[in-house]
Amino acid sequence: MAPEQSRFQTDRALLASRLRGILPPHCLLLDDEDLRPYECDGLTAYREMPLAVCLPETEAQVVDVLRTCHQLGVPVVARGAGTGLSGGAMPHAQGVVLSLARFNRILRLDPQARLAVVQPGVRNLAVSEAAAPFGLYYAPDPSSQIACTLGGNVAENSGGVHCLKYGLTVHNVLRVRVVSIEGEVFEIGSAAPDMPGYDLLALLVGSEGMLGVVTEVTVKLVPKPELAQVVMASFDDVGKAGEAVAAIIAAGIIPAGLEMMDKPATAAVEPFVQAGYDLDAVAILLCESDGTPEEVAEEIARVIAVLNAAGASEIRVSQSEAERLRFWAGRKAAFPAVGRITPDYYCMDGTIPRKRLAEMLSAIADMEQKYGLRCANVFHAGDGNLHPLIMYDAAKPGEWARAEAFGAEILELSVALGGSITGEHGVGIEKINQMCVQYATPELEVFRRVKAAFDEEGLLNPGKAVPSLHRCAEYGRMHVHQGALKFPELERF
Amino acid sequence: MAPEQSRFQTDRALLASRLRGILPPHCLLLDDEDLRPYECDGLTAYREMPLAVCLPETEAQVVDVLRTCHQLGVPVVARGAGTGLSGGAMPHAQGVVLSLARFNRILRLDPQARLAVVQPGVRNLAVSEAAAPFGLYYAPDPSSQIACTLGGNVAENSGGVHCLKYGLTVHNVLRVRVVSIEGEVFEIGSAAPDMPGYDLLALLVGSEGMLGVVTEVTVKLVPKPELAQVVMASFDDVGKAGEAVAAIIAAGIIPAGLEMMDKPATAAVEPFVQAGYDLDAVAILLCESDGTPEEVAEEIARVIAVLNAAGASEIRVSQSEAERLRFWAGRKAAFPAVGRITPDYYCMDGTIPRKRLAEMLSAIADMEQKYGLRCANVFHAGDGNLHPLIMYDAAKPGEWARAEAFGAEILELSVALGGSITGEHGVGIEKINQMCVQYATPELEVFRRVKAAFDEEGLLNPGKAVPSLHRCAEYGRMHVHQGALKFPELERF
Repeated sequence: MAPEQSRFQTDRALLASRLRGILPPHCLLLDDEDLRPYECDGLTAYREMPLAVCLPETEAQVVDVLRTCHQLGVPVVARGAGTGLSGGAMPHAQGVVLSLARFNRILRLDPQARLAVVQPGVRNLAVSEAAAPFGLYYAPDPSSQIACTLGGNVAENSGGVHCLKYGLTVHNVLRVRVVSIEGEVFEIGSAAPDMPGYDLLALLVGSEGMLGVVTEVTVKLVPKPELAQVVMASFDDVGKAGEAVAAIIAAGIIPAGLEMMDKPATAAVEPFVQAGYDLDAVAILLCESDGTPEEVAEEIARVIAVLNAAGASEIRVSQSEAERLRFWAGRKAAFPAVGRITPDYYCMDGTIPRKRLAEMLSAIADMEQKYGLRCANVFHAGDGNLHPLIMYDAAKPGEWARAEAFGAEILELSVALGGSITGEHGVGIEKINQMCVQYATPELEVFRRVKAAFDEEGLLNPGKAVPSLHRCAEYGRMHVHQGALKFPELERF
Repeated sequence: MAPEQSRFQTDRALLASRLRGILPPHCLLLDDEDLRPYECDGLTAYREMPLAVCLPETEAQVVDVLRTCHQLGVPVVARGAGTGLSGGAMPHAQGVVLSLARFNRILRLDPQARLAVVQPGVRNLAVSEAAAPFGLYYAPDPSSQIACTLGGNVAENSGGVHCLKYGLTVHNVLRVRVVSIEGEVFEIGSAAPDMPGYDLLALLVGSEGMLGVVTEVTVKLVPKPELAQVVMASFDDVGKAGEAVAAIIAAGIIPAGLEMMDKPATAAVEPFVQAGYDLDAVAILLCESDGTPEEVAEEIARVIAVLNAAGASEIRVSQSEAERLRFWAGRKAAFPAVGRITPDYYCMDGTIPRKRLAEMLSAIADMEQKYGLRCANVFHAGDGNLHPLIMYDAAKPGEWARAEAFGAEILELSVALGGSITGEHGVGIEKINQMCVQYATPELEVFRRVKAAFDEEGLLNPGKAVPSLHRCAEYGRMHVHQGALKFPELERF
């Protein structure tokens, strides 16, 4: 994995001395044993040791660190809680990790304007907890919400089970304050509905730390619905479950959440969480409705009618808040539950049009045979976002390579079915080659130019998110010459 | 208005000869009498004659025109139907107008996937008409929807009375196909919920023809609601009406439309349209609810309760589709209705936080005295988007200058109240100076860099949307030195 040659050659002693002049000792890590915890994020298969970790406490320190790295030509990788699943926060061997962990204050909470101004190191769930006394919450709820930070959510444009109705991070962020690699501070966005000038907010959100470092985030808060209920439906056929998802949306219903789990997923979850899932079902759907009691009753009735018409074999509706939370607890614990039954798993994140769900599941079943690995499927079905969990054992020679190839084939099939290689986890280092499949040369050239507008020397998170044209040419050659999916050695980045 | 010196010096004969080599005669206008209709858009106070108007019929012709202009260093101003209200399509004296009028085909309509692929010259309303047999429509509905085109909507990020619930153009566009000034074709966006790489779709939408020329737009279609009803409420006090708007939103209701008109506006409209408005009211609100009959009944009941609590003096609910359309007809005809009672009017487009509505209306009343001009107010109140219509007579010396200063003061107060200088009409040439009030130097510098990433030589729509730092320095000096609002001569652009 380690690049043999890097375009960066950092003078470690000089860097350390300059950083010591900016940061107090407790804000700067330079020893290997202190750096070790930062060598990877949630994608543990990829690791790299940085030269230094900076833990600034003020925006002025962030500015100074970035300015110094810019002057010295040193790569900078920003980091939130490190829960990301695509390696976006994996360090650079010649660079600095800039952790925003100490930017952990909620600066302002305005219940009337329904917004909160928070520092990027604030945990996702902490925003909703602070807003709860006012009957408000922050809508995007990634499964990692207890740990992941708003800054990381902004970098990856995180979603969650409720993003079908309430949107991704990009739909719930009003404004960001950003420091450029040159140390300039600028603000993007507003509480106003449409700002003049170029709309850069969506560009910054999801840019994976490639364009600037966020030091402040203004988020929307939404009123907690009076009531929420979940319908759980069992299907004896994956195709029927997929069609039921499409039929719910086609009926004009926008559920607060619409999730699908296959039998291997429910089998892993049930002994762990006792969520009450139907273990005989080939697939189950969880469909949440929220609003006033009248709205929920009316929508649930329509959902049940659609599910019956689609051939559901069993339907249950949560009868209490405790039962609703139990139904979700299984879904939210699916990743750790799969982690209990396999030494390692590899979580994928493609999206496909809803109507292709059954096709994808059938293709994944074939791939299980082809690669000799099992896969449990947990889908944000309502918006076609797949999270296949490929089970492998890193200790067995060849299994990780097979898992990686399995995942790559899922992603490339996602593109072929009219979807994309990531729904909410970002590209990072993980899906950098699949970007060559997703995009053609003119699009990648536009990305390159936009990147250069913010970071001409390419110091911010190099080697992530957007591949060079050279890398794509290499990847294309591997594809064509060898017939099967192979990964070229990572080029120097 | 004409710039005395331009950084562009076009060889008109060479340009004409090169364009003749690309376009058939019926696609190229070069004579003054043919060019005249293109000298302005809907902002008729600003006019400029172009050197040529190109009316390409194929994307290959668009590519060739742009490539040629790039080679010759000739400015290009793209144009839809010319209904824009901020002068975004005003020609450049040394440049070419690139009209997309002949890109007027709906290429694909997919009712199952609920999307349409259209050329940029397709009229807004034509999309909804084509989708109607499938029970679908295109949501953003600017008042000009009978004439304005999707390409223009994309350039200006247009809204409409329903954008509070259904979003602006940016929320209803899935993908655009773009030709760069260098003649490269690229596609941005997807039907997938979240694409990897930088999110450039929001950047392109609303970029006012500064970054590229759109040749294809994929839009979302949404199901027509089963039922829609409008509540019309009268208020004897503008402050109460403003508070009612805030109270509706605070109650967690998202109406399909929430509009406010003051007495001068209803007085102009009623004789023209006979909408049935209460002419004794100081302000009226129109609040639409849509959905299933049960949803509408429940929401209307909640809206009425809030309006009563806010002190409405009279409340009526539309009892038929004909009456609903009549209530809206008055609102939609407000601009031409005001046009009947004054020789000229100047339509503004600021946004402010909803809770500042009453404050803004009171300030506008003071400005009417200060500038000696009347103003009728028509607001997209639900999202705080103001359309004050300043009445003046261009034939009377000094009136236009006073109207312009009046408008500028409204916009700058919008910024001071926490809002922005445009809600949905764009910056164009009209609000270019107010951009210096809206943004600080670091933000303008980021805009400049992003522009350069797409159009290094600044050939696409020069002088619009994003001011140079030099212009802002000039504008700031005028402000500071002269105390009152004055407009410096436009710098060369």
